[in-house]
Amino acid sequence: MQQLLRVQNFFVSADGYGAGEGQSLERPFGHADPTVLGEWAFATASWPGRRDGGGTRGLDDRLVGDFHHGIGAEIMGRNKFAPHRGPWTDGDGLDWRGWWGDDPPFRTPVLVLTHHPRPAFTLSDTTFHFADLAPAQALERARELADGKDVRLGGGASTVREFLDADLVDTLHVAVNPAVTLGGGSRLWTSPAELDHRYHRDVVPSPSGVVHHLLWRR
Amino acid sequence: MQQLLRVQNFFVSADGYGAGEGQSLERPFGHADPTVLGEWAFATASWPGRRDGGGTRGLDDRLVGDFHHGIGAEIMGRNKFAPHRGPWTDGDGLDWRGWWGDDPPFRTPVLVLTHHPRPAFTLSDTTFHFADLAPAQALERARELADGKDVRLGGGASTVREFLDADLVDTLHVAVNPAVTLGGGSRLWTSPAELDHRYHRDVVPSPSGVVHHLLWRR
Repeated sequence: MQQLLRVQNFFVSADGYGAGEGQSLERPFGHADPTVLGEWAFATASWPGRRDGGGTRGLDDRLVGDFHHGIGAEIMGRNKFAPHRGPWTDGDGLDWRGWWGDDPPFRTPVLVLTHHPRPAFTLSDTTFHFADLAPAQALERARELADGKDVRLGGGASTVREFLDADLVDTLHVAVNPAVTLGGGSRLWTSPAELDHRYHRDVVPSPSGVVHHLLWRR
Repeated sequence: MQQLLRVQNFFVSADGYGAGEGQSLERPFGHADPTVLGEWAFATASWPGRRDGGGTRGLDDRLVGDFHHGIGAEIMGRNKFAPHRGPWTDGDGLDWRGWWGDDPPFRTPVLVLTHHPRPAFTLSDTTFHFADLAPAQALERARELADGKDVRLGGGASTVREFLDADLVDTLHVAVNPAVTLGGGSRLWTSPAELDHRYHRDVVPSPSGVVHHLLWRR
């Protein structure tokens, strides 16, 4: 059985940035405003944070819903997990349990890549593991954690780039918001056409204004 | 918890027909050629009949994959199940077990609506039940069978129409193939705009040529 490595619902600006400059506790996306970058996704019925039973059920919703479908584990970079840099210390970071509160949306094992491993912990249905691994070894570990299902590559952009450079990514769903230009930060690509020699690519403009790029290996 | 009634991957011609005229054992879609009508779907990795591990993984694939996501039961009309009409007889129809061989793609309970109920039977992961019920009662029964999940309304077109007329359908994914005109048969709509007073509708042209219509209640 195939266990794909999939990028899902990755939001980028018109100029290809997944986050801005200057990430901090107050601004996990740096100078980027995630409420604008991801506005199309938050409007959908399938958005993981939605609790009111409402939301749209069109194209954007189908793609947001794929966040969970067939996924058994996530790989994320440390900078997606925490604003801290360097070793975790008792006073600064070792008590940090992610941005997502007591009920994180992942609901699978999550493998956080960091040069400073720390003990695993569980919040609701999500267990965070920490390991200092190169992309190929990280994928091997995540596949074990995923119990036969696919692995989501959660980002940030520099983590996605590392796995692309190692040719480990099977599919990508990247949502480009043409209304947002960031000019700096963590960049996925200058242009999605950079990947066209390795991936097929469907370009699907949504009625919401966002443009979905769906890539799969040639 | 909401249990939606969803139409998924319903193929129609440019003029809105789901099947042609003259259904028979040899031609389950009558004069329509399902290999042309559904060509876009058969090319995808998620097509239920695919066994080779290949196929496209773009927009069409995401929508085909939704066939199973969150679904706990299907409702279908008798004419989707069998080419026979009238009472089942020992020599003609009572031994009929559907078009799908020993391993049907549904993998849930299927409720077949017919004026001529017959005993349920199971093939692999699919159990076919038969009942003479009006749409609202059929939906109630299917929701029980679905064990908390959504219900797929599988067609044919006249069955979808009955449930639309009873205002029971929550979402529809209809794939219009602009290359096929049928001129007669089992018709879903003259134009999808007929439903715009009751449903939001995203119109999404795919790179494959098919045009996806995604509808959800206003």
